[in-house]
Amino acid sequence: MTGQTEPERKNSNAHRVIEANVNLYGPVTLADDVWLEPNITMFGPVEIGKGTYVGPNCVLGFPDRIEFTEMLSKRKRAARNEAGKLTKVGEEVYLRSNCTLYSGTTVGDRVRFGHNAMIRENVTIGDGSLVGTNAVVDGNCILGRNVSVQTGVYISTYTTVEDSVFLGPCCTLINDKYVTQTPYKLKGPTIRKGASVGANAIVFPGVEVGEGAVVGAGAVVTKDVPSKVIVVGVPAARLKDVPNSWKTSLG
Amino acid sequence: MTGQTEPERKNSNAHRVIEANVNLYGPVTLADDVWLEPNITMFGPVEIGKGTYVGPNCVLGFPDRIEFTEMLSKRKRAARNEAGKLTKVGEEVYLRSNCTLYSGTTVGDRVRFGHNAMIRENVTIGDGSLVGTNAVVDGNCILGRNVSVQTGVYISTYTTVEDSVFLGPCCTLINDKYVTQTPYKLKGPTIRKGASVGANAIVFPGVEVGEGAVVGAGAVVTKDVPSKVIVVGVPAARLKDVPNSWKTSLG
Amino acid sequence: MTGQTEPERKNSNAHRVIEANVNLYGPVTLADDVWLEPNITMFGPVEIGKGTYVGPNCVLGFPDRIEFTEMLSKRKRAARNEAGKLTKVGEEVYLRSNCTLYSGTTVGDRVRFGHNAMIRENVTIGDGSLVGTNAVVDGNCILGRNVSVQTGVYISTYTTVEDSVFLGPCCTLINDKYVTQTPYKLKGPTIRKGASVGANAIVFPGVEVGEGAVVGAGAVVTKDVPSKVIVVGVPAARLKDVPNSWKTSLG
Repeated sequence: MTGQTEPERKNSNAHRVIEANVNLYGPVTLADDVWLEPNITMFGPVEIGKGTYVGPNCVLGFPDRIEFTEMLSKRKRAARNEAGKLTKVGEEVYLRSNCTLYSGTTVGDRVRFGHNAMIRENVTIGDGSLVGTNAVVDGNCILGRNVSVQTGVYISTYTTVEDSVFLGPCCTLINDKYVTQTPYKLKGPTIRKGASVGANAIVFPGVEVGEGAVVGAGAVVTKDVPSKVIVVGVPAARLKDVPNSWKTSLG
Repeated sequence: MTGQTEPERKNSNAHRVIEANVNLYGPVTLADDVWLEPNITMFGPVEIGKGTYVGPNCVLGFPDRIEFTEMLSKRKRAARNEAGKLTKVGEEVYLRSNCTLYSGTTVGDRVRFGHNAMIRENVTIGDGSLVGTNAVVDGNCILGRNVSVQTGVYISTYTTVEDSVFLGPCCTLINDKYVTQTPYKLKGPTIRKGASVGANAIVFPGVEVGEGAVVGAGAVVTKDVPSKVIVVGVPAARLKDVPNSWKTSLG
Repeated sequence: MTGQTEPERKNSNAHRVIEANVNLYGPVTLADDVWLEPNITMFGPVEIGKGTYVGPNCVLGFPDRIEFTEMLSKRKRAARNEAGKLTKVGEEVYLRSNCTLYSGTTVGDRVRFGHNAMIRENVTIGDGSLVGTNAVVDGNCILGRNVSVQTGVYISTYTTVEDSVFLGPCCTLINDKYVTQTPYKLKGPTIRKGASVGANAIVFPGVEVGEGAVVGAGAVVTKDVPSKVIVVGVPAARLKDVPNSWKTSLG
């Protein structure tokens, strides 16, 4: 470990693996059984729970815009730490190679990340969720428990994704109704419990996708989708109700 | 090189370049003229062919889910190696910066990768193919020879892409017909020899795109496409036959 | 710093931060107040302006195809440098983690990059622009001043994006009319001053989007869009004129 600070150890029975060229700046707390691969960079304050794996080249605690500007204008890493929000990662989390977590992010237990996922500031991700490769979650979003965010999904700021939602590969949840052309309070969609969004679909700003609803692949969802309804097409329109035989993750 | 193991040398005439902070875990075999840039991590068994270039920050031999769980539960890197499948990269391959290849991947000769490509376990990529920047190929896929996978393409598990296929930027090949709502045996599309898929197009699970067929940009392909036909639109429909004057890479 | 060459200092009052495992190959010139995070790799000639921040794992000056082949065939890094074009980054630029800039790229002042952006050879990016996370700009493109390229945008070769354009998340600007099936001189779109392109939209090869025009999210733009017009749908069609009350960044 070539980092600037020695990580705190929560107790003396730690069975940790810390590989070459792990660089830790500021206070980093590692629980037992943490496994850190080569070339990890962390900007504390960061807390990592028991049994969590952090893959090669991951960056944790990246400063948000305010912290970043402060740090650079003062030419002092500590200026980020003083204003710095905690980055908290739960137990038995897997962060595969090259993920970036911003400062102020809270990741629950048993969350699994693919490669190169990027999570911005003040995001909460619930226990047991999955965040796929190249997925981007912008700031101030809430993701519930057991959410599945597949490869290449983009979630813009101020989006809510409830428990057990499935977001198919490369779908996009957007937050600006007027593509910057006129003032608009940015507001992402709300995806209710157990809903599914197909691959490459787009869900418009402020739109609500109801509980257990299904959005077809490639659909462009411009209006609210009622609970337990299937919508498809451009713009998305009702195809039929979700058959009773389908599981909807609603339990 | 700061790695844990000394790579085997196939013979004594090797003209290799191995830069700073290359970390090799487990058995890694390097042929002559291999060029390894800084911050590479490899999890053996890995074999790299003659004249191959591996760019900065690449990760090779990343464990699949079974190996990964085994390794973490035993707190022992070797537990991955015992179960570990070979990652085999051919001759004169270029892996540009930040690519990830999983364990059990076989890459042919003269394959060129862009940046940040991610190839999951048990994928085979034929000689002379190209895999663009940010492309993701999920597990158990077969890509033929001289395939061109452009930037940002997503290929889901159990997909077959035959020789000389062109997959345009950001197109998506998907494998789950019911977005996880009802049991379905995951099955990606089959793209036959010499076919072309336009930018941002989606090809549905189990769909076959025939030899030399052309899918327009942005099309949503929900049904099989006959050989040598052009389809466009949402959902995709026949536009016309591929003109005889067009080359189709069918030779 | 573990690099092969000592960077030139423009004067003796430099207040630089250079972290662990920064590898600089060939001539690199750093102005005052430059901040280099861990695991950066640069292939000179590279020039970095005053007050610029380069995040963890960034790669600058990556060789283009010609330089790359030359370097590998001669087994000599210097062979790239002899033919190597300058990579020039302006003042107060932020390059967040894992960005790649190719040789021959010119980045203006106060340009802000997200994470994992990839800019190919001979691209010019004007002052005050923003390039989002996972955005890819292929070779020989021109981006004006105060352009906003959001997350996941793909811009193909030979594209022109004028001042104050907004490119929404995951939109795609393409350059090959016939998906490689017949000879075609590659030509990206031209996006005129102050125009906006919505999320996931596709703009076809050679198409011109007029000044202050607006392309809706998910639109597929196959024909020129007049100035100050809104188009939506697949294929994109005129919805109405841009209301006078909308700002269009045209000043």
